[in-house]
Parts: sequence; C-alpha cells; structure tokens
Amino acid sequence: MADPPSSLGFEALPMFQDALREIVDRTEGGVASLIMDSEGIAVESYARDDAPFDITTIGIEFGVVLGSIKRAAESLEAGQAREVAIGTEKMTTLIRTLGETYFLALAIRPDGNFGKGRFLMRAAAPKFLAELG
Amino acid sequence: MADPPSSLGFEALPMFQDALREIVDRTEGGVASLIMDSEGIAVESYARDDAPFDITTIGIEFGVVLGSIKRAAESLEAGQAREVAIGTEKMTTLIRTLGETYFLALAIRPDGNFGKGRFLMRAAAPKFLAELG
Repeated sequence: MADPPSSLGFEALPMFQDALREIVDRTEGGVASLIMDSEGIAVESYARDDAPFDITTIGIEFGVVLGSIKRAAESLEAGQAREVAIGTEKMTTLIRTLGETYFLALAIRPDGNFGKGRFLMRAAAPKFLAELG
Repeated sequence: MADPPSSLGFEALPMFQDALREIVDRTEGGVASLIMDSEGIAVESYARDDAPFDITTIGIEFGVVLGSIKRAAESLEAGQAREVAIGTEKMTTLIRTLGETYFLALAIRPDGNFGKGRFLMRAAAPKFLAELG
C-alpha cells in the first residue's frame, strides 16, 4: 500500500464511526465499541451517551489480555487468535482481531445479546480490515 | 470446611469425570474438558480418544490468561470474571470460573457448537462448585 493511513486520515473517515455505531445500536444491550491497535492506541470509538464505563480504558486493559492470548495460542500451536469474549458481573466484552495489528471490541451489558454482537462484528470485520489496509 | 478435598479425594469422586465427559460428548465438536485450580493443577480432566491436543497444557496456558483477565476486571471495576471464550484458527476454548480458585474449561473444534458448550458449562457449574466446596 503506497499511502498508509495516518491517524489524521482515520479521523477524516466517517466509515469507522458509522460502522461502530451500527454495531452498538443493533446489539441489544450494546454500550460502546472501538478499533484499537496492539499498542493500545484507539483508531476510533463510539459510545452511547449513557455508557457506564470508558471504552478506551476497557480496550487498553483487554488489549493487554489479547496479547497474552496471542502468546498462549502460539505456544499451543493453536493458530491465530480470532475472537475473544470476556464476561464479568457488570459487562461482557467481545473482541475480534483485525489482522495482526488491530482489534475490534464491543462492550455490552451482561444481559445483552451476545450472539447478535458476535454476528455483527464478524460481518463487519472484512470491511474494517480493508480500510485499515 | 473441616475436611478440604485432597487430590486423592478428587480421584475417588467419579462425579467429576462423568460430568466432564457429559459436557464434551453432548457438545457437537467437543474435544476435551477439565477442572483446574488457579495454580495450574488439574483436579480432573476428560479427553476424547481422538483429541488432537492436550487439555492440561491448554488449561495451564489459558489459566495464565484468566489470571490477567481477573486483574484487568479488577482494574476496570467490572466485577468478578465469570466466563471467557477464546477462538483461534484450530480450536475454541470456553472457560467458566468456579468460585475464586477453580475454573472449568472446554475445548471444542472451531466448527463445534459454541452455544451448546456454553450452556452445558453454565448448567453444570453449581454442581461442580458444591463438590469443590
């Protein structure tokens, strides 16, 4: 790719915001979503006005977890990590890797529609990947 | 509890083996399952004869991941970690915490019935917890 996207380039692309909002809004119980790189830098995020927590902080914490999952998968020769779901008392977080550098995360309420969120993320992943280059 | 269960005590309890086998056999694509403590010591495990990987090694690797998830959840004030699903190219691993010390893990093939495994683990958890004391 001759012209790799800069963070300024990302800000100028409404596609990410729209796609993240669509995933949150179409998932019953959806709260917030983001695209982040493996160093914990958010590319774009979207949160509902009433989101009870900060999606960037969640992304940073679970991005570290994703790193330990990638190392474990390598050690187990289990192939590339593709998706992770983490359920705690107060929220469920779904993560889908976008290539080796980026990941997509969606936070939903514990009673939210986990399967729907997972489906929407899977469907959107190729579009994100194409834009991230 | 006056008489904490020893590993010898566990070996004498057929309940764990039977329950682990039931979870594996009733989950389409189920390969192996185990109960492990937070230090990576397996309480009991069950694997199909044709299991392509060692469930104890998986438990140890993803037990470390579970530790990092617990720390992240604490930092995020997200409440206790309850369940984790990790999907890689070659397998999906479902983990359910059993109190603060133990966890239940189920490895299934990538095309296996994720939802069924999750349901069976959730249904079996109270029974395991009662035995683990």
